[in-house]
Amino acid sequence: MIIKLGSGHTAEHVDAVCRLAEAEGLKPVVEYGSLITVICFIGTFNGRYQAIMDQVRTMDGVDEVIKVSAPYKLASWLEHRERTVVDIGNNIRVGGQEVALIAGPCAVESAERLDDIARDVRAAGATILRGGAFKPRTSPYSFRGGGEEALKILRDTGLKYGMATVTEVMDTRQVPLVERYADMFQIGARNMQNFNLLDEVGGTNKPVLLKRGMSATIEDLLMSAEYVLARGNRSVVLCERGIRTFETSTRNTFDVSAVPNLHEKTHLPVIVDPSHATGRPELIPSMALAGIAAGADGVHIEVHNAPKEALSDGPQALLPAQYRELVTQMRRVAEAVGRVIK
Amino acid sequence: MIIKLGSGHTAEHVDAVCRLAEAEGLKPVVEYGSLITVICFIGTFNGRYQAIMDQVRTMDGVDEVIKVSAPYKLASWLEHRERTVVDIGNNIRVGGQEVALIAGPCAVESAERLDDIARDVRAAGATILRGGAFKPRTSPYSFRGGGEEALKILRDTGLKYGMATVTEVMDTRQVPLVERYADMFQIGARNMQNFNLLDEVGGTNKPVLLKRGMSATIEDLLMSAEYVLARGNRSVVLCERGIRTFETSTRNTFDVSAVPNLHEKTHLPVIVDPSHATGRPELIPSMALAGIAAGADGVHIEVHNAPKEALSDGPQALLPAQYRELVTQMRRVAEAVGRVIK
Amino acid sequence: MIIKLGSGHTAEHVDAVCRLAEAEGLKPVVEYGSLITVICFIGTFNGRYQAIMDQVRTMDGVDEVIKVSAPYKLASWLEHRERTVVDIGNNIRVGGQEVALIAGPCAVESAERLDDIARDVRAAGATILRGGAFKPRTSPYSFRGGGEEALKILRDTGLKYGMATVTEVMDTRQVPLVERYADMFQIGARNMQNFNLLDEVGGTNKPVLLKRGMSATIEDLLMSAEYVLARGNRSVVLCERGIRTFETSTRNTFDVSAVPNLHEKTHLPVIVDPSHATGRPELIPSMALAGIAAGADGVHIEVHNAPKEALSDGPQALLPAQYRELVTQMRRVAEAVGRVIK
Amino acid sequence: MIIKLGSGHTAEHVDAVCRLAEAEGLKPVVEYGSLITVICFIGTFNGRYQAIMDQVRTMDGVDEVIKVSAPYKLASWLEHRERTVVDIGNNIRVGGQEVALIAGPCAVESAERLDDIARDVRAAGATILRGGAFKPRTSPYSFRGGGEEALKILRDTGLKYGMATVTEVMDTRQVPLVERYADMFQIGARNMQNFNLLDEVGGTNKPVLLKRGMSATIEDLLMSAEYVLARGNRSVVLCERGIRTFETSTRNTFDVSAVPNLHEKTHLPVIVDPSHATGRPELIPSMALAGIAAGADGVHIEVHNAPKEALSDGPQALLPAQYRELVTQMRRVAEAVGRVIK
Repeated sequence: MIIKLGSGHTAEHVDAVCRLAEAEGLKPVVEYGSLITVICFIGTFNGRYQAIMDQVRTMDGVDEVIKVSAPYKLASWLEHRERTVVDIGNNIRVGGQEVALIAGPCAVESAERLDDIARDVRAAGATILRGGAFKPRTSPYSFRGGGEEALKILRDTGLKYGMATVTEVMDTRQVPLVERYADMFQIGARNMQNFNLLDEVGGTNKPVLLKRGMSATIEDLLMSAEYVLARGNRSVVLCERGIRTFETSTRNTFDVSAVPNLHEKTHLPVIVDPSHATGRPELIPSMALAGIAAGADGVHIEVHNAPKEALSDGPQALLPAQYRELVTQMRRVAEAVGRVIK
Repeated sequence: MIIKLGSGHTAEHVDAVCRLAEAEGLKPVVEYGSLITVICFIGTFNGRYQAIMDQVRTMDGVDEVIKVSAPYKLASWLEHRERTVVDIGNNIRVGGQEVALIAGPCAVESAERLDDIARDVRAAGATILRGGAFKPRTSPYSFRGGGEEALKILRDTGLKYGMATVTEVMDTRQVPLVERYADMFQIGARNMQNFNLLDEVGGTNKPVLLKRGMSATIEDLLMSAEYVLARGNRSVVLCERGIRTFETSTRNTFDVSAVPNLHEKTHLPVIVDPSHATGRPELIPSMALAGIAAGADGVHIEVHNAPKEALSDGPQALLPAQYRELVTQMRRVAEAVGRVIK
Repeated sequence: MIIKLGSGHTAEHVDAVCRLAEAEGLKPVVEYGSLITVICFIGTFNGRYQAIMDQVRTMDGVDEVIKVSAPYKLASWLEHRERTVVDIGNNIRVGGQEVALIAGPCAVESAERLDDIARDVRAAGATILRGGAFKPRTSPYSFRGGGEEALKILRDTGLKYGMATVTEVMDTRQVPLVERYADMFQIGARNMQNFNLLDEVGGTNKPVLLKRGMSATIEDLLMSAEYVLARGNRSVVLCERGIRTFETSTRNTFDVSAVPNLHEKTHLPVIVDPSHATGRPELIPSMALAGIAAGADGVHIEVHNAPKEALSDGPQALLPAQYRELVTQMRRVAEAVGRVIK
Repeated sequence: MIIKLGSGHTAEHVDAVCRLAEAEGLKPVVEYGSLITVICFIGTFNGRYQAIMDQVRTMDGVDEVIKVSAPYKLASWLEHRERTVVDIGNNIRVGGQEVALIAGPCAVESAERLDDIARDVRAAGATILRGGAFKPRTSPYSFRGGGEEALKILRDTGLKYGMATVTEVMDTRQVPLVERYADMFQIGARNMQNFNLLDEVGGTNKPVLLKRGMSATIEDLLMSAEYVLARGNRSVVLCERGIRTFETSTRNTFDVSAVPNLHEKTHLPVIVDPSHATGRPELIPSMALAGIAAGADGVHIEVHNAPKEALSDGPQALLPAQYRELVTQMRRVAEAVGRVIK
């Protein structure tokens, strides 16, 4: 909402408009001109958009009140005021009162190893099993994933433990293959603006876990979600996983405010990934708890039973025992904020 | 300190580096590689770490100089493995099992208004009262604080409600005045590297609340704390209040990982300020909870009973009733992570 | 690789790290300090540098693992001390004393329009014609390019004016099509870490213009170049096009220091794109001149003869007359720094 | 300028308004609402503000045109359309056709050393001598400057070689002292928002060199200049010296676009400091040339005759011979862009 105060308005008029914004929980942003002043109201209107517009119009000094809204439509909370609950199948959901737990190794390395890890994280409380078959690696000389063989192992292990599965897809050509084996596509941070890939998964009916790019704004992330939604696939889960800043003591900066910020702007569920956000295992537990306290609908954690032998990203994985302990703590914090982890 | 000599270096280059180490009373240990040579300096640097690094960097053949120890000593956890509890007087402390609650208006506006706010936040559970007498404002045309008169009001109100007081000091010349009235100095984000001011408060015996600069790394913050500690004042509380990133939908990005990250590196208490970190009142409660879940030793929140009339930063303040409700939630989350709010 | 073991480590921790080095065919050199121990791994890593680093990081007692050699080999100046000159065919090259001029519209819109623009930029001095057939757009509702029809127009126009052509490829499935029509692939900023796409163009023998991602470090960019080189395609041109920072008055921040910085680290040619870097036409000319003064091997500029009617990014394009005037200025600055624009 | 298109407007109406903006060299920023669309025109109006407003008002679909302007007034180009030339005394100026050269060591170390350096940089072409007497250092254990003794040496050396002098002031209490000895105050990056210090130098009649903070936006910098101007001191020179970003291979990221960007927004002169911007001597020359090509009114470079022995920031200083060679190159680039270095 943009409010224009015409010539002849006073500082008192500006203040009065700002006070009204604040009284409604909105942030007034003021631009002073020589003749006129423009005030934008930023925030969530809670269904009071029209009422506020009507009220502002009557105020002294106000010439005009202008309605504006976001460039994303299908993802917008303002236009779909019902929280989306994404159904991944097998009675597992993301969104709603329950906090979803996604866990597993960075990469599927072998059937035995994945079986061990899955058994442990399932016992701890996780219901969605992650594991990479196609790995984005900054170096062309690094291990790049087990491909279809890994997908089969992931599927079989998920079935054995009654877990849904999620795995990354990196290339439009991999979509049919991944669709065949996994319950949910993951679009990684580096592909958040791979628009052809977004289109392609948008054309399937499998849910999509869309990770925020390292330098993507909240609006960028919602525009990428809009790509998937616009193709007809309405099952999108957003994931905060750290943004790139000047701070070098953590791999990325975990933007935990993205959780309530996104919940204000969209009806889609929002989860957090403290493993990639920090890159330091000793910080993961407290960041997982912070994410739940902030209202996250799920927590994605990398777990490995022998990090030293991991083919990829071992250093940031928790051990199964650490994960089990963390779930106990997450359960307590979830309850403290009115959520549930079963 | 590790020195890397790149391809093309000669034996003379290696010798020169070794001689410099010896001149500083250090032991150089040399490893010859196929293309590169690596030299480690072992020993005690006597405060000349940075100077030596800078000097070595200029030497012929040297490619890179790598720091392997923290340049801060007094602030370092590795050197002082006992958590500091800062005593602000009047039986109020920051650090320890209890989570300290700091609350109050951005600026002290009048005795009546501060009295109202103080009564409410005290009743809600806050024990430290904040209120600005000297305000840093980006525009020279904005309200810049009530000065000594405001300091008196702050002191009297604190005494009346049994609260300790904290207020910002912006100029070395203000230090004696603020010291006379307040229980704790606040160094604001914009002055985090105002080294003369750090020196000056370091020469007093009042505790210091040091806010992280908008573009300060964790190490920068600890170096600034070191300034205060080095002058003899060991009562420093660090505060995460948001860093500057590319994201524009929040005023700053709340780096909640700073809490456990700092706790790993320093024995000083760490608090969070979700008011300045987000600039959006609707995000403040969830960020306060996230801070506590992450292990914060205190939470600093701006509260105002008539944000619309506030002379400064009204839009980001919570109302007393919102604050009371938030304290109830903070108490639950604190308990969930083994902390206490009385 | 340098491994630091912090205070509290034991002789067993040191031994374990040494055994790992030996298992990898490396020589561990140990230096015992007073509080910490430092171990250097010397030898040939056979592509396992990152994997070993990751593994060491998880070991007990290890505080920090420090990289002392660049993880890219084929792109490295240290290993290939001869400047690469990329031959695009038709006697047109990037690298060498001459500064290459790439110009054209954001998107190929029609044969007539492209013909007009190509004639003008060719007359001004450009030798490489750009024009998008597949457009990455943040909104799914925007114009997304003319596809094969646009590719044909681009090829025919290039042939008519004796210009080489470059166009963006966004999807592995588009590679054969683009290869058929264009002289050079462009990998856009958003796909800089689309590793499958890098692999795919690396498998062709057409040159690749690789744009730096908005949040990619210099090392990230070189690692992405390494992907293409590692597949056998040695014709890679790097492009600085602005990075994402907190500054909002320009679209991105033009990191002109990337030019000499990359020239120090790699033998590949480096060009600049001031159009995308600033997003403000009034800043483009001075940024083009700054790029040349900094040593750029080429300048990429968007030119449109009717920006108001452009289907994409019109606002940031120069008019043909502005471009002609700019080339005159660029020629003078190029001569001032010992380069040539014909 | 903000343009509101009312209900009933079409995409064609929006396009037409955008085209007009582009035709005027302005950037149109569009916000689509459900009922109305708002377009902001960003850029320099070149005296055509009213003419454009009048024209837009007549266009189809346009309901309203709203005039806005910047929060800084005295610094604004829009309000003072004449370039400020700052007179530092002794017939030396910053602004105008000539490019001012500021050079000297980081810190004044001794009379002999400063004399040597001053003689060399003066011979090379510099007319303003820099040298720190009060040094902001991140570590309290580093050398912090020679104080008044250093100021005397700086003054005497400047007089001997007919150079104006500039030196940093860090504390309001130092202002009278520095005013007595130096010709120009420098406000360092870390003090750019030390508002009391800005006020204090604003109350003198000596020119002020104001360096951009590491995380300051262009608007922040102009607001800080406004503080000085508002106190009556109209002699302010702005300096780009690198901003903090995620890139770690340079100390800061040199935002060369700040030069034309500031020239669009303010009448104050703008200089560049490639020494602090990069922190790597091998990048300084090309960045100095880039700054001049971008239109800088001056270049500030640290020069030291024995960097290895420097008490502060030696590694980033050029040697006198390197500086002399660089001035020769700068002179050529200055001429290529219609400027002069004597």
